[in-house]
Amino acid sequence: MSGAFSRLSRLAAHLVTSSSSPTAADPVKSEYKHRYNFHTLSPTAFLPRAAAIEPGAEAIYHVTANGKILRRSYQEAADRARGLAYYLKKHNFKRVGILCPNTPAFLESIYGIAAAGAINVGLVTQVANEEDVMALAYTSGTTARPKGVEFTHRGAYLAALANVIESGLNYHGWTFPWAVTAVRGTHYCLRKIDYPEIWRLLKAEQITHFNAAPTVNTLLCNAKEAERVKDPVRVTVAASPPTAHLFEQMTNLNLLPVHVYGLTETYGPITKGYHMPAWEEMPLEEKYRRMARQGHGFVTSLPVRVVKTDVPEGSVVDVEKNGKEIGEIVYTGNICAKGYYKDAEATRKLWAGGVSHSGDLAVWHPDGAVQILDRAKDIIISGGENISSLALESMLVTHPDVLEAACVAVADSHWGERPKAFVTIKEGKQLKGEDLIDWAKHKSGISKFMVPREVEIVTELPKTSTGKLQKNVLREWAKGGDRTMAK
Amino acid sequence: MSGAFSRLSRLAAHLVTSSSSPTAADPVKSEYKHRYNFHTLSPTAFLPRAAAIEPGAEAIYHVTANGKILRRSYQEAADRARGLAYYLKKHNFKRVGILCPNTPAFLESIYGIAAAGAINVGLVTQVANEEDVMALAYTSGTTARPKGVEFTHRGAYLAALANVIESGLNYHGWTFPWAVTAVRGTHYCLRKIDYPEIWRLLKAEQITHFNAAPTVNTLLCNAKEAERVKDPVRVTVAASPPTAHLFEQMTNLNLLPVHVYGLTETYGPITKGYHMPAWEEMPLEEKYRRMARQGHGFVTSLPVRVVKTDVPEGSVVDVEKNGKEIGEIVYTGNICAKGYYKDAEATRKLWAGGVSHSGDLAVWHPDGAVQILDRAKDIIISGGENISSLALESMLVTHPDVLEAACVAVADSHWGERPKAFVTIKEGKQLKGEDLIDWAKHKSGISKFMVPREVEIVTELPKTSTGKLQKNVLREWAKGGDRTMAK
Repeated sequence: MSGAFSRLSRLAAHLVTSSSSPTAADPVKSEYKHRYNFHTLSPTAFLPRAAAIEPGAEAIYHVTANGKILRRSYQEAADRARGLAYYLKKHNFKRVGILCPNTPAFLESIYGIAAAGAINVGLVTQVANEEDVMALAYTSGTTARPKGVEFTHRGAYLAALANVIESGLNYHGWTFPWAVTAVRGTHYCLRKIDYPEIWRLLKAEQITHFNAAPTVNTLLCNAKEAERVKDPVRVTVAASPPTAHLFEQMTNLNLLPVHVYGLTETYGPITKGYHMPAWEEMPLEEKYRRMARQGHGFVTSLPVRVVKTDVPEGSVVDVEKNGKEIGEIVYTGNICAKGYYKDAEATRKLWAGGVSHSGDLAVWHPDGAVQILDRAKDIIISGGENISSLALESMLVTHPDVLEAACVAVADSHWGERPKAFVTIKEGKQLKGEDLIDWAKHKSGISKFMVPREVEIVTELPKTSTGKLQKNVLREWAKGGDRTMAK
Repeated sequence: MSGAFSRLSRLAAHLVTSSSSPTAADPVKSEYKHRYNFHTLSPTAFLPRAAAIEPGAEAIYHVTANGKILRRSYQEAADRARGLAYYLKKHNFKRVGILCPNTPAFLESIYGIAAAGAINVGLVTQVANEEDVMALAYTSGTTARPKGVEFTHRGAYLAALANVIESGLNYHGWTFPWAVTAVRGTHYCLRKIDYPEIWRLLKAEQITHFNAAPTVNTLLCNAKEAERVKDPVRVTVAASPPTAHLFEQMTNLNLLPVHVYGLTETYGPITKGYHMPAWEEMPLEEKYRRMARQGHGFVTSLPVRVVKTDVPEGSVVDVEKNGKEIGEIVYTGNICAKGYYKDAEATRKLWAGGVSHSGDLAVWHPDGAVQILDRAKDIIISGGENISSLALESMLVTHPDVLEAACVAVADSHWGERPKAFVTIKEGKQLKGEDLIDWAKHKSGISKFMVPREVEIVTELPKTSTGKLQKNVLREWAKGGDRTMAK
């Protein structure tokens, strides 16, 4: 990895700043100093531990850019991460950015860089504070400019343990780098999303777990290589609300959805849709509808809440658990990030009233399930009625020819706003926008005011590298903006 | 549970003392006060969480003293524990003892009592300090007078998460009360150890996990109801070092051993014998020998160490990892208890040199495995040679008629000490002490100096309620002491 390494060190050289670690007078730090029954919670310890238990266990599988298969053991991965950590420490780097696809170098770097900030974690017990910032994770920027979310060692550690438990990870895996390492699974690094390659791996490598956004799962289920896998694969679905229709398709392929919800501000997933035995007795449609909800906190999380949005800033009042009253999802506790890097005003807003605001609108059901309606910015207000873009998309994808749908508001002189849908269609199918509008109006069963004013068939929807829909880009498209700006 | 409840409250009344919680000036506490991205790590939160997710899930199964089957849901168990917590809080109880067999009341009490000390944990985030003492767990007193080991919320929480992961708990279970609750398993409460009843439950109730000391597993494997179970059951084996012979018997019955090691001073298990794929290629004898070792720290533990015993108190020097040099097992970090209740001198000794001393002697193998030889107090020193009582017992139980063996030192005018073995024999078998000595001398392959001077056949060995051998009692027996004192 000398190439990646030298790129990293060049990048790092640009990022050297003065130390931002707490002062020696930090009361927590000094208090911890004399306690032997204490060690810093930090996920960096998982890597040397895995190497100590089973040095030869396969840590990394990767097909390199020139088609060679690279397999790396836990001992090798730990040695490489440790080498990077010592290098960074020696040269007193304080902040290191990673500009890299999902490759072994990326994986080893996140361990090496985090360990450089807490060099002795896992070796000696009290040299780092578990609430120090370990990493800055940048938001994807689909709704606002990207912000640097501050992750602590403690938060990342507890989030990783929860991922192990909630995803039922055991001895193989794909993503959740800390969690997979904690159980000595094998990381399969994919340089980019490549559906034939994913199917090849699913069939040939006995993959047990993978994580992907609903958009990625949709295209995966519709790829021509799709075929029911022999052993069930647990698929953590997150990043945007999935549809019941998608969960049905996945289940039929033996890709068992683990439905979670979270944000960069919560270290990724923080709540889950716990599958209830009673659902198996329900009609399939109802079962998949339930599966598309979530809402109970992970094992290391406090309960999440849905709170009223029509109260003064700083007031935090729960909505009724009636499946009707719309509110905002908020949370507190260990697996909430500290705040935004060098952005006091955004941090103040994030934590208004002492709860971390998600910006996601939802209803709360009597069983505690949370059903996301929309990002606050994505809801379409037409003639005074709220139209959930998500609900509309969930309906449109049930048309047999539709592959994906994404709806945004367009200005309407009479109704204020009306929906416009961007749609991709399945291979070999033909569909016109007018036909889909006609179908929505007469066959879908939705209220008339929800029917899109326009439907545009496109070849591809704009998405981030993790498969998240870029509705900000679609809004530009709807206004006639430049279509080359996606990605 | 009004009976148990009133007994508890009478008991509690005797235990009321003034508060021992830290002062308001505690720097950790005051520092935590203003952080929303923080909540107290406490296992008490697992119970209300389980009830919130799946209120009707079966939390407790118990056959009452009069033969009735009692099944209780998570909602009921949480309500009862909460009621007890509020009662204790209202009347300002500070320390509550539990005098109770393993029944639902016991289980609900440990939640209710712990929650009373941190009443809002899981509801509000910052009212308790996670490093406050949550419980005093008394040592069994097999080697010294019982001491009150101080458990903190943080330690118990991290130990529970580790138990979930290390035992592969998912949605059923038997013991590890916090861990089972964290994953909404069903607790099977047994008033006492009852082998026919355990086999009935294993066959009828699809038990997935249970925990027991080697002595209990030995009698379980040799019970007449023993029969290979259809689905594998994961059996956490701890409390004293198991023999390779036992692991072979268990595996043949589809009771798959999860070999862990720990003490009351480490919240129970802290290390594990991680099963390596390469062992499957080894001769059976070697495989089971490896399985009888452990030594890598749990996922929430720091690595354990084996340190020299012939250095001044306070020096901590690792032994060689050569499988030969004998040292003491020591550990540090979160899943080590704070110290002993009101016993500063014992606490000072426990933490001498800044590591928690186990008092267990072991060798350290090159692969990091720790092989326990003996409790320091149980080793037999004969003519200047160390005889591991455990090694001797492991050999004696390979005799086809022997069920259990326990060896202690007896004074010998020539050799200083020599071993005496107490032995139970299998049902329907006949064996005399002299015959076993003869077999040990000529057929077992051990060195002559290890051969027991005396072998006494007994009907039962003295054990604690958790099945731990009481060698202190056996030493009294060997001196001609009163044999009614066992248990």
